[in-house]
Amino acid sequence: MKDTEKRLIELRRDFHKHAESMWKEYRTASIVARHLMTLGIPVVMGDDLSVKGMQFQYPSEEKIAEEKRRAISQGAEPELVEKMCGLPGVMGIIDTGREGPVTAFRFDIDALPFSETDAPEHRPVKENYVSVNGGSCHACGHDGHTAIGMIVAEELMKRKESLRGRIKLIFQPAEEGGGGARGIVERGCLDDVDYFFAGHIGLTRLDGKPLPSHGIIGGAKDFLDSRRYNIIYKGKAAHPCGNPNDGKNALLASCVAALGIHTIPPHCQGEFHQNVGVMHAGSSRNTIAADSYMEVEVRGENDIVAEYGEKKMLSVVKGAAEAYEVECDVVLIGKSSSGASDDRAIEIVMRCARTIPWFTEFHDVGSVGGSDDASEMLRRVQKNGGIGSYIGLGANFTASFHDKAFDFDEGVLAPSVELFVRMVEDIHS
Amino acid sequence: MKDTEKRLIELRRDFHKHAESMWKEYRTASIVARHLMTLGIPVVMGDDLSVKGMQFQYPSEEKIAEEKRRAISQGAEPELVEKMCGLPGVMGIIDTGREGPVTAFRFDIDALPFSETDAPEHRPVKENYVSVNGGSCHACGHDGHTAIGMIVAEELMKRKESLRGRIKLIFQPAEEGGGGARGIVERGCLDDVDYFFAGHIGLTRLDGKPLPSHGIIGGAKDFLDSRRYNIIYKGKAAHPCGNPNDGKNALLASCVAALGIHTIPPHCQGEFHQNVGVMHAGSSRNTIAADSYMEVEVRGENDIVAEYGEKKMLSVVKGAAEAYEVECDVVLIGKSSSGASDDRAIEIVMRCARTIPWFTEFHDVGSVGGSDDASEMLRRVQKNGGIGSYIGLGANFTASFHDKAFDFDEGVLAPSVELFVRMVEDIHS
Amino acid sequence: MKDTEKRLIELRRDFHKHAESMWKEYRTASIVARHLMTLGIPVVMGDDLSVKGMQFQYPSEEKIAEEKRRAISQGAEPELVEKMCGLPGVMGIIDTGREGPVTAFRFDIDALPFSETDAPEHRPVKENYVSVNGGSCHACGHDGHTAIGMIVAEELMKRKESLRGRIKLIFQPAEEGGGGARGIVERGCLDDVDYFFAGHIGLTRLDGKPLPSHGIIGGAKDFLDSRRYNIIYKGKAAHPCGNPNDGKNALLASCVAALGIHTIPPHCQGEFHQNVGVMHAGSSRNTIAADSYMEVEVRGENDIVAEYGEKKMLSVVKGAAEAYEVECDVVLIGKSSSGASDDRAIEIVMRCARTIPWFTEFHDVGSVGGSDDASEMLRRVQKNGGIGSYIGLGANFTASFHDKAFDFDEGVLAPSVELFVRMVEDIHS
Amino acid sequence: MKDTEKRLIELRRDFHKHAESMWKEYRTASIVARHLMTLGIPVVMGDDLSVKGMQFQYPSEEKIAEEKRRAISQGAEPELVEKMCGLPGVMGIIDTGREGPVTAFRFDIDALPFSETDAPEHRPVKENYVSVNGGSCHACGHDGHTAIGMIVAEELMKRKESLRGRIKLIFQPAEEGGGGARGIVERGCLDDVDYFFAGHIGLTRLDGKPLPSHGIIGGAKDFLDSRRYNIIYKGKAAHPCGNPNDGKNALLASCVAALGIHTIPPHCQGEFHQNVGVMHAGSSRNTIAADSYMEVEVRGENDIVAEYGEKKMLSVVKGAAEAYEVECDVVLIGKSSSGASDDRAIEIVMRCARTIPWFTEFHDVGSVGGSDDASEMLRRVQKNGGIGSYIGLGANFTASFHDKAFDFDEGVLAPSVELFVRMVEDIHS
Repeated sequence: MKDTEKRLIELRRDFHKHAESMWKEYRTASIVARHLMTLGIPVVMGDDLSVKGMQFQYPSEEKIAEEKRRAISQGAEPELVEKMCGLPGVMGIIDTGREGPVTAFRFDIDALPFSETDAPEHRPVKENYVSVNGGSCHACGHDGHTAIGMIVAEELMKRKESLRGRIKLIFQPAEEGGGGARGIVERGCLDDVDYFFAGHIGLTRLDGKPLPSHGIIGGAKDFLDSRRYNIIYKGKAAHPCGNPNDGKNALLASCVAALGIHTIPPHCQGEFHQNVGVMHAGSSRNTIAADSYMEVEVRGENDIVAEYGEKKMLSVVKGAAEAYEVECDVVLIGKSSSGASDDRAIEIVMRCARTIPWFTEFHDVGSVGGSDDASEMLRRVQKNGGIGSYIGLGANFTASFHDKAFDFDEGVLAPSVELFVRMVEDIHS
Repeated sequence: MKDTEKRLIELRRDFHKHAESMWKEYRTASIVARHLMTLGIPVVMGDDLSVKGMQFQYPSEEKIAEEKRRAISQGAEPELVEKMCGLPGVMGIIDTGREGPVTAFRFDIDALPFSETDAPEHRPVKENYVSVNGGSCHACGHDGHTAIGMIVAEELMKRKESLRGRIKLIFQPAEEGGGGARGIVERGCLDDVDYFFAGHIGLTRLDGKPLPSHGIIGGAKDFLDSRRYNIIYKGKAAHPCGNPNDGKNALLASCVAALGIHTIPPHCQGEFHQNVGVMHAGSSRNTIAADSYMEVEVRGENDIVAEYGEKKMLSVVKGAAEAYEVECDVVLIGKSSSGASDDRAIEIVMRCARTIPWFTEFHDVGSVGGSDDASEMLRRVQKNGGIGSYIGLGANFTASFHDKAFDFDEGVLAPSVELFVRMVEDIHS
Repeated sequence: MKDTEKRLIELRRDFHKHAESMWKEYRTASIVARHLMTLGIPVVMGDDLSVKGMQFQYPSEEKIAEEKRRAISQGAEPELVEKMCGLPGVMGIIDTGREGPVTAFRFDIDALPFSETDAPEHRPVKENYVSVNGGSCHACGHDGHTAIGMIVAEELMKRKESLRGRIKLIFQPAEEGGGGARGIVERGCLDDVDYFFAGHIGLTRLDGKPLPSHGIIGGAKDFLDSRRYNIIYKGKAAHPCGNPNDGKNALLASCVAALGIHTIPPHCQGEFHQNVGVMHAGSSRNTIAADSYMEVEVRGENDIVAEYGEKKMLSVVKGAAEAYEVECDVVLIGKSSSGASDDRAIEIVMRCARTIPWFTEFHDVGSVGGSDDASEMLRRVQKNGGIGSYIGLGANFTASFHDKAFDFDEGVLAPSVELFVRMVEDIHS
Repeated sequence: MKDTEKRLIELRRDFHKHAESMWKEYRTASIVARHLMTLGIPVVMGDDLSVKGMQFQYPSEEKIAEEKRRAISQGAEPELVEKMCGLPGVMGIIDTGREGPVTAFRFDIDALPFSETDAPEHRPVKENYVSVNGGSCHACGHDGHTAIGMIVAEELMKRKESLRGRIKLIFQPAEEGGGGARGIVERGCLDDVDYFFAGHIGLTRLDGKPLPSHGIIGGAKDFLDSRRYNIIYKGKAAHPCGNPNDGKNALLASCVAALGIHTIPPHCQGEFHQNVGVMHAGSSRNTIAADSYMEVEVRGENDIVAEYGEKKMLSVVKGAAEAYEVECDVVLIGKSSSGASDDRAIEIVMRCARTIPWFTEFHDVGSVGGSDDASEMLRRVQKNGGIGSYIGLGANFTASFHDKAFDFDEGVLAPSVELFVRMVEDIHS
């Protein structure tokens, strides 16, 4: 397994270095697609993989063209990029030719939309795999997920003759707020699936602490219902000394709104979280700010709580607009649903994990610690009578998820491949 | 003049000790009325002095009954109290019997509605004239004004034979937010007046510094247009742990409103001021606050600015209510108008002041530093072709106006009497 | 049981009408003590029941004297009042004279420190048991608890001969923020106890909904660690027009602090709640507010979370003081600890409840929905190897707990008595 | 004059289209320098004009290199650009060779650092002179000032033989916050000046209304003391659901600071203004914001007021940092001093303006409505016994100063040239 481990790390660091955030993952998807095709696995891409028009925060044509050029300059294959039809992802289908169940694995491949730290003590800096793509940073471990999925494909092809049924390996773009799963679900890719699994490096134990290296969580049951909005205020510029009374201060309206959103109380029927993660306001020090922009999300353990938070948030946003006499645009940017892993799927995970020596800390249930649109896929599978789980793969971190200094213990990669392969053997033998 | 000075201080300290805030001035008015009557000056009171129904913040019947009882227990004469018909003030009219102009002086007699400090270093504590009436405190010098007015009456009566025309001495209640002047103006008491003067201990120089002892300001030209509101929010109580989502937090709505009101920018067409002076919210530490109450004022150098501030303030108040989903009652509590002293009246003041050795620092024009409903009287006089001035009588203070530790240099009292007497001699000889 | 029901309602309404909030419960305790003595139950009071000096928000000597007079005028017996030594509570001890376990029941007797609604549709108004004690209101059901405890005493005395061991009936004052349990624990009253129970009308189901009539919760496991503070800001008064720059605005500092406290994020290691329940600031509309006062609490599911909240809250409080250049007094007013019912105690409750037809909705575990200093007693019992439970007695409400319009379904009273008697029979037979 | 007017408009629109904000004015300065040289006027540039190291908000070497390339691609002459030594401005000196006074005119040439509107109704859009330089916009009329200065040079050269003394025409960069005047003053360029004038299109009348077309203000006396800061908060990122308690929210700290800064009360000793004009915080919707950045200014009528505002602002900034436990960098970015035009200089302006028929509305004194670092030059001249004035040249606007839709009545250009020429004739004949 030593050689596999080395290759996993190489792959993961290559993706890390060429991080591609939401809807830019042309290079990553191209490399994955080529790998699958080389292994002899048929691939599904573009309009065959997803349905257009359901994406969140989808970029402009110009931006996409620019990103395709950038991806190609970094090694993406032009024909593959074209085949993706603007939806940079890929699904490989391993068909054993024998009757049997259908299992799908979801690997998310996107980075986060901010720049990585360049601090000299950051391992990616020291060992030269820090992101060269400004504004994109693998601070959530998806680089690792992608590498795991590629080697899982390889290992499964070695065992293909001893397996039954079909295995779908879905490399999904835009998990971080782009709603990448929605189009894939809508296209029907999950409709024949009996078992669905997605894994995430890390996750949180039920005691609120991060799952360390050597830990395994069988499944999370607390996907949060997430609703994401952009809030744009339009006020009126004025000189703060010359005619301050003519101004309508969009910056102050945003400040009141942000504070107000963060004072929305919790809900007695389930976990609730809110965040104003981004604010940009004003254009000049000596001008009353005429414009502001905020990125907001509310999440609830169920749709009652999420709707409560959404309604309260919108009241705050409108009230702040009225208070400062500014106009208000409220733009729904994304949604993902709540969900929970199935006990029977968790059993499969735990049974297999216990056979792998690397895993020494066992938790049947853990916490998503937020949302993941794997829940959209899981719910579709469950609706059709299938089962599934969202697995936690323990790894020590150097910083919190979504921190620009995030890096993880690469020791988790090889055991994760082993786990997924065992699970397939368990289900498909 | 030494004996007069002693009597001025005694009178002033007696009023200070028995401070009576807005619409409670029965004892003060009764003592003034008796003094005027003893001097042989006819007095006008109650419905002959003022018109009912125009007052701001007028108390309940029960409260008035209670205050009358309190005033009588502190030395008010029951018959005089009754004669005031719920409007505790008095006007004395010195009629020389000879043709001539009509001059009116306004002396305001009310205290402020809070308790005086009991700090041992406070002179009223040390010398035993600290207010015995909790919730009432002479922190604006009206005790001095009242004393000055009484001795002016005495001095004028000594000179009556050498004077012409008539002099009205108006002892007005409820200057501090109660709109005490309005009813008196409406009754017509100012309609025959040619010269109007009101004096205030202190005032502010044009350089923003307080007028010290030995200073004189001929007249202020910057009465602010003041609009006063009470804001009541009604939310919904809930337990902050049990069902926080059911609450509507009136306390937080008030906090957002108060901050918002204080962020209203100034206006390029004149001075603007806002203040949230009082807030009360909530009833129990472990209950989401269902109620809140705020006392707010906005003031402008002219009605354009005041209306601007009023409109902005109401937007903030309503926006905060919407943000926190609370109901909102907006109650107009009082108004007073802008205004300015006349140059010709200022000349009279300065000419007379220059004959009095105590005055050594001379300013033709100074600043009200806010509002005074003497402006209502002044505007009525000016409308009929008369002139007037709002005079500053310099005095060192121990603390700012409206501070519970306010006290003033009593040396100002005697020269002020002298000034007013000289002005009458100047006009009525 | 019909007659018992009638008496329970009469007792409960009498306590409701004469509501006594923290440290004022002389009348309630006196009536209870007289009732126990009449039944032949020895009572423990005053310094034998509790230890002085550990109470929170304990009133001044003058206030206590006044409340004693008030209580006596409303029917308290002067000798009993004196015996309480300033700690208005009482414990009755039923000693069967036979060896056996010791069980303690806690009944809290205090009201909340605000006035009841006088809305005509409020049942206490219509049926004439609305609180006659302004500033005290039974909005948490303790009137019912007290009545239940009294009839439980009566019923147990009827069965005394068939029981073994001892039963302690503790009627505790000042549960709502006064730390009434602490002194009783410190005195050692719980040190010999094997089984501890406290019941609360209502409580919350694990799904976050209130427990309705006919419901029973065997025990709550989520007592929150609560820390209560008063925050006093001292600024500097100034006239908002005359010299606004001299002011230090304590009102705005409080507003920033209150908003900031409510923006403290939740904690991943357990439930967290914060509340600024009371704010008073300023004394006059046209004065920059020199003083403010806030009542604050933070609660956590465990001491890690509570300490986190306390630390964050204090940072906010100090930061707001620095921002507005005001002085800051931070006064710790009270604490209560986290805790959880024992499964074995819950089993006893549920076993007994299932024999009572009125109970038809069964929940082993429910939620405190906050804190109750019964946790202090429970922890002491558990420390000594005993077990206990905090029981939910289902009842429909007219309004949320701590709402001035709170009232409950009195149908819960008789079955609750029956439940506690059965539990004693179960344990002590 | 018709032809002059056409040329003025052409020049102004060319500068408008190629707007260059602070420290980027290489193209503008190059065109002016070439024009002066062509007229035979000796020019002073680079280190002969200014002293390095005193500038505010000076860009990085890379940025400057980039802007030089951009300027050259838009028509700047490479040799002239090099001569400017990184300080893009130019002074022409017309020396008559005859003894006489020295007069200096200051023309500011920089644009504002934001993008112009592309609204179709905006005249620069319709008539094709909208800024092609994103992030730079002539929203303050300096394009007009530059054009005026160039034609003034031309007209003066025609009259050179009839004049005495010397005339300095200073084309200054970076008036808008860059402190462009400071280095020029420090170099000594103003040390021999007897008369100093700067004009501004627009300005504000003393009644707070903008000076319309055909109006003239002889001089402003209310330059504000301005202090400009950047505030950077550094918190700690965390996932708002996973581990919100680990976050230190820099976005909320900024919101509290911005609101707090805008609640700083006015000062009784002079005009006071504050503004938070720009805020950027956070990098990802679902991450607690770890960074924020604000651009802040405070201004006072004198240094007492400005220092008061600066001190209060810094208290707010530090208090907000403490409240949210974030680190705080406070960077002084710029300063300019207060100042006032001289009555004797105003007399010269008004005397000359009255001879020009276009001017029909005459105001001796008007308002700067803020700050202009012409005050630095004016103060140096006054210190050496010279006099000067800051002149308002009336022009109707389409939007407020500093609004991205600002444009002005170009009718003001030709009369302004005429005025400055007359003033030179008046002084130098």
